[in-house]
Amino acid sequence: MPSVVEGPEAMGDAGLRARAARVIPGGMWGHQRAAAVPRGYPQFFVGGDGAFVQDADGRRYIDFMCAWGPIILGHRHPAVSEAVRREMERGDCLDGPTPHAVELAETLVAMIPHADWAMFQKNGSDAMTTCVTLARAGTGRRKVLVARGAYHGAVPWCSPSLLGVTAEDRVHLIHYRYNDVASLEEAVAQAGDDLAAILVSAFRHDIGQPQELPAYAFAAAARAACDRTGAALVVDDVRAGFRLDLGGSWERVGVRPDLAGYSKAIANGQPLAAITGTERFRDAASRVFVTGSFWYAGAPMAAAVATLTELMRVDAPRVLEAAGLRFRDGLTEQAARHGFPLDVTGPPAMPVMLFRDDPEAALGEAFCLEALHRGVYLHHRHNMFLSLAHTPEVIDAALEATEGAFRALARSRTA
Amino acid sequence: MPSVVEGPEAMGDAGLRARAARVIPGGMWGHQRAAAVPRGYPQFFVGGDGAFVQDADGRRYIDFMCAWGPIILGHRHPAVSEAVRREMERGDCLDGPTPHAVELAETLVAMIPHADWAMFQKNGSDAMTTCVTLARAGTGRRKVLVARGAYHGAVPWCSPSLLGVTAEDRVHLIHYRYNDVASLEEAVAQAGDDLAAILVSAFRHDIGQPQELPAYAFAAAARAACDRTGAALVVDDVRAGFRLDLGGSWERVGVRPDLAGYSKAIANGQPLAAITGTERFRDAASRVFVTGSFWYAGAPMAAAVATLTELMRVDAPRVLEAAGLRFRDGLTEQAARHGFPLDVTGPPAMPVMLFRDDPEAALGEAFCLEALHRGVYLHHRHNMFLSLAHTPEVIDAALEATEGAFRALARSRTA
Repeated sequence: MPSVVEGPEAMGDAGLRARAARVIPGGMWGHQRAAAVPRGYPQFFVGGDGAFVQDADGRRYIDFMCAWGPIILGHRHPAVSEAVRREMERGDCLDGPTPHAVELAETLVAMIPHADWAMFQKNGSDAMTTCVTLARAGTGRRKVLVARGAYHGAVPWCSPSLLGVTAEDRVHLIHYRYNDVASLEEAVAQAGDDLAAILVSAFRHDIGQPQELPAYAFAAAARAACDRTGAALVVDDVRAGFRLDLGGSWERVGVRPDLAGYSKAIANGQPLAAITGTERFRDAASRVFVTGSFWYAGAPMAAAVATLTELMRVDAPRVLEAAGLRFRDGLTEQAARHGFPLDVTGPPAMPVMLFRDDPEAALGEAFCLEALHRGVYLHHRHNMFLSLAHTPEVIDAALEATEGAFRALARSRTA
Repeated sequence: MPSVVEGPEAMGDAGLRARAARVIPGGMWGHQRAAAVPRGYPQFFVGGDGAFVQDADGRRYIDFMCAWGPIILGHRHPAVSEAVRREMERGDCLDGPTPHAVELAETLVAMIPHADWAMFQKNGSDAMTTCVTLARAGTGRRKVLVARGAYHGAVPWCSPSLLGVTAEDRVHLIHYRYNDVASLEEAVAQAGDDLAAILVSAFRHDIGQPQELPAYAFAAAARAACDRTGAALVVDDVRAGFRLDLGGSWERVGVRPDLAGYSKAIANGQPLAAITGTERFRDAASRVFVTGSFWYAGAPMAAAVATLTELMRVDAPRVLEAAGLRFRDGLTEQAARHGFPLDVTGPPAMPVMLFRDDPEAALGEAFCLEALHRGVYLHHRHNMFLSLAHTPEVIDAALEATEGAFRALARSRTA
């Protein structure tokens, strides 16, 4: 290690990893730890700009993770930066909420058909935990139906890891299979008169699995079961929210929830989560106690208003879908031409890319690493994210790199 | 309501409340809702500056809540604003952590004697939930001892409200009385060989109650019980952290925890939480899965480094204690002179102010409202917070206002 470090950016990825290994358990935690990306990927980043990110070694990539979802307008979008700057010049974290809390709630209520009201938090886990608490408060019941394998956050009741979690944290969960009406009905029956909520992801986006859009019959069955039993239908729109439909992702299937949770893209990277709900749950929402030290801060809410305004102005879901289709079509054409069976599934704006017969994703890792070396940051198992900065020119530049990656992969296969 | 609103700030508190009542359940949620402050207090704020906050009606107050804890250097401290601005100009929310994650972990490890490592989150609730998860992961046990009435967050396992919470969310909690060794020992015995952790607040700061510093015998007993049983001693330093002792609040009583949680003041208002721990829990910390969409963002971590650097430079706890003593001594002298029995308890930098024989805090509310009208924002039941911007001149100006408030109270008593 150099004895003089002029600033944190003076240290490259390897040096930072060595320092991190001493003061951060395992070198990093959670979904942005290096263990979650292919070996050879950078751990540390120092900048973002439109569709590009820059790592601690100064390498620049076309970014298909968008900070794992939060970036939807592109990194450092001027309207968002300006909103944050303005709030920081006034004071962001105060003794009460700023007027932006009202402005943002009004924006969501105007934009989302089922929304009669909104409340704000910080993490997606906060939003989903609040939905569950609210459903229980509003129904006086306890059971919550969750699709097996679905990700709803990283707190004990829903974390994908059971380490440090007790059985009782999950005793009131009942699992069903996404898009499987019979399995859903069975879970509803099992809950009996204690059914508080049915949780559904915007679409099936379980890690390492082909993605599935919600089938209409499944969505309608979930809605009907809630109508029949008085339970809350809760859409987890934390990951997908604002990329597929600005009225909420289940508008695409024509089914409206009672409660929905959002986070990630809502403020283009500023820390914010939200829930929206119907009149029926307003009273419960006014009585539960949910809060956090920074939940009232003005800058993320002003950033969210700026983000949503821009998304509406350009009809973002349409633009993102077009960009995603261009990328997907290019990738699948390249894969076929080079003789690699590749499935790109899910909504084009949030594709997951899985090679067939690649259960350990070894081929996926090798491909992603080749793409990385050519300046494109992809993921081998998790869904990726497009932003409005992914213009046709950017997609085409990315496809030039992936063409090179497939060629390298084909070479190493024959070697 | 006016038909033309030029911006959110064009609307005063009353108008904003009317708008909020339509789109936010109960008009606002959590600890910053108007129900948590005296009737007549403003709900909405638009700015902060040093020791001052400004409400949506343009009134300016000397701020003794400091955003309910986060502000410790004063609102809009230039070193913090500059750190945030710099990060925003590079890109804040990226595909991985920035070098500031390492820099901040190194800063905490150097500053906090028990800390061998650190991890970062967003909410105080995240920090405390992570400590509990970690203690369970590290010990393979389930029971967690919590002081009755202590606040550790607003998620189901610890929320002060039971609405929407199930019995199982708390089935592994065992309660004891803060500063009561016998009660602690009884709880330890009850947990038997299933004791994962003893949670202790930095000091007793239950709302509406006189505050109590930890007694040495109690702190030593908690430490000894953990040493004897292998459980984790966890200090909840979310509220008090960095105001009382930069090495962790229990340094003052000479007892070191195995794990500690921080948030609030760590980044002078930027959204961040942290946990620190000893070598013994490093492995468990590297294996639990805890994460959030914005937990890796650079700006709050850069803000934290700037905040902690400044706190160390000026020896903040000493300065804050002096400011707090000046305020406490002034208040108690005024109260006595005007014939009001007032108890100002707890550490001077985080005082709670309770009138005796005022169980509903009606007198407290009346006093706070009189002070508010004279430009000082106090709280009638919750502990208050001082910042480094509370200079002797600011304290003296506040005391001039409270003198007027006591005089008005005395007048209305004799009227």
